[in-house]
Amino acid sequence: MEKIQQLKERFDAFIKGVEFVKRPQGLYEPVAYTVLQKGKRLRPMLCLLACDLFGGEYHEAEYPALALETAHNSTLIHDDIMDQSPIRRGMETVYKKWDTNQAILSGDAALGMAFDFAMRTHRPVETLSLLTHAMLEIDEGQQMDMEFETRKEVSIPEYLEMIRLKTAVLMATSLQIGAVVAGADDDDQRHLYDFGIGIGMAFQLQDDILDCYSDVSVFGKVTGVDIVENKKTLMYLKALELASPEQKERLMALFSGEVSLHPQRKIDEVIALYDDLGVKAEVERLMADYYRQAYAALEAVKLPEERKIHLRRYAEMLSGRNK
Amino acid sequence: MEKIQQLKERFDAFIKGVEFVKRPQGLYEPVAYTVLQKGKRLRPMLCLLACDLFGGEYHEAEYPALALETAHNSTLIHDDIMDQSPIRRGMETVYKKWDTNQAILSGDAALGMAFDFAMRTHRPVETLSLLTHAMLEIDEGQQMDMEFETRKEVSIPEYLEMIRLKTAVLMATSLQIGAVVAGADDDDQRHLYDFGIGIGMAFQLQDDILDCYSDVSVFGKVTGVDIVENKKTLMYLKALELASPEQKERLMALFSGEVSLHPQRKIDEVIALYDDLGVKAEVERLMADYYRQAYAALEAVKLPEERKIHLRRYAEMLSGRNK
Repeated sequence: MEKIQQLKERFDAFIKGVEFVKRPQGLYEPVAYTVLQKGKRLRPMLCLLACDLFGGEYHEAEYPALALETAHNSTLIHDDIMDQSPIRRGMETVYKKWDTNQAILSGDAALGMAFDFAMRTHRPVETLSLLTHAMLEIDEGQQMDMEFETRKEVSIPEYLEMIRLKTAVLMATSLQIGAVVAGADDDDQRHLYDFGIGIGMAFQLQDDILDCYSDVSVFGKVTGVDIVENKKTLMYLKALELASPEQKERLMALFSGEVSLHPQRKIDEVIALYDDLGVKAEVERLMADYYRQAYAALEAVKLPEERKIHLRRYAEMLSGRNK
Repeated sequence: MEKIQQLKERFDAFIKGVEFVKRPQGLYEPVAYTVLQKGKRLRPMLCLLACDLFGGEYHEAEYPALALETAHNSTLIHDDIMDQSPIRRGMETVYKKWDTNQAILSGDAALGMAFDFAMRTHRPVETLSLLTHAMLEIDEGQQMDMEFETRKEVSIPEYLEMIRLKTAVLMATSLQIGAVVAGADDDDQRHLYDFGIGIGMAFQLQDDILDCYSDVSVFGKVTGVDIVENKKTLMYLKALELASPEQKERLMALFSGEVSLHPQRKIDEVIALYDDLGVKAEVERLMADYYRQAYAALEAVKLPEERKIHLRRYAEMLSGRNK
């Protein structure tokens, strides 16, 4: 735990000292506003822990970690325009606080800054190559997500592929980049990448569950947002799979906007249906499968098990966010 | 002339064979739609000619040239949203043909693809570093341009700095990347960069002139668009400098939207004023200065003058676009 805490504090201190706001200030202020918001620094932490796992120097992973955080934030700035989300992490989003044009341009600048940061290591080509491919895959995932909104039917494999691209790939890439800068061999890089895919998938499925079964005071997220916005999450797709023909029809009607209910009544009805069908347990089962896959990949890394304790603990902390 | 033609044909053939559309197609189709539009391939040509100048292999510059074209198009896709421009190169823009969200996301993907292409050379780090910095400077130029729209006063140096960032830097970077992959030394890289800044500035100033003094049938651009849209180009800023107090007041009123005239009447009145003040000759003088600076930088390159003939011809072709 100490190691995790120590890396987090060191990275938080580092990021505070980075000069985000250059001229023209209007371009860079929204980037600083977004990247400097307090957060768990998930992707940087994965990168730093992976580097540490292979005995790499902290400072070799520092700028790549910042690159990952900045690149992630560039996608958030643009996604919030596309999704018209006014609030993130309890703060106004960039397009809301400034305007759409500023959010487009500052999001572009954030991505440019991320590439600039990614080069500041002794392995710039591999780091940049991994980051570039991850960013394209995130765009592909976002494209699928947008297309799902207007599609009547989405299959579970399609949904899982979408969240792999949109969420898991950058977590996996963060780990791989940490491994690369620490000099890990190709096999171990691949194991860490697979570990990241596993925890990334589980992480997103847990998000899907938390939307239905969590508490605003703990998570700062309004419960049931996915339901109100007719998001075809795994909760919904699993429910369709398990539902009787009548239940299926009702659920599809509720998620198509055909039936208009007061939001809270809609949330209550959908969650009651999920409860009836045992959807939560099903999604939790799949989540546990992904965690198992993740730990198996971590075990395959050619290092003594005691070295892996910090990454394992970090993954456990992630999986424990509903406790 | 033959060399220019030959490089253009080779690059056009190459770009046709590049696989732009991967899955999900919805993401990549707008990129292909934009990049594959017929054009003069200005940035690729500068890169290829610079590589050739230093005796570099064509194939080392091919992907960097494509990276420059794709990166340039990523900025156009986003700029057209910000400027609400429905038409470019006689075709519907991406945000108009698809929608804003698609244009944001496909523009992001285009930038990611550009970085991927930029790595496909034996000098990936320098190429990526130069491209990254140029992209950030373009964003800075676009930021200044957006801020100028709502500002009452813009100085001529500020305007020149804006077009340097928004237009000239990527042309200069295209030349420098061609020089880098051909193995030119730092001094010669800098000379080519400076040559690019000179022709880039002149190129943009000529655009400013052509808006007032050209013909739709030749350029596919509606004359006077900058005037109708109250763009503070160098024509306008020079006019303010040369105007009497009364003329200045009238011009500022016309460009602030205070006075509302039929577009053609506004264009006619403004151009008549420009004619009176001799604005065109003043801007042409500055343009000629930039060309002179450009040619001086090219002369400083440590190579026999006969090797430089193609780049010089290419720059002359650019400067002759109003003939």
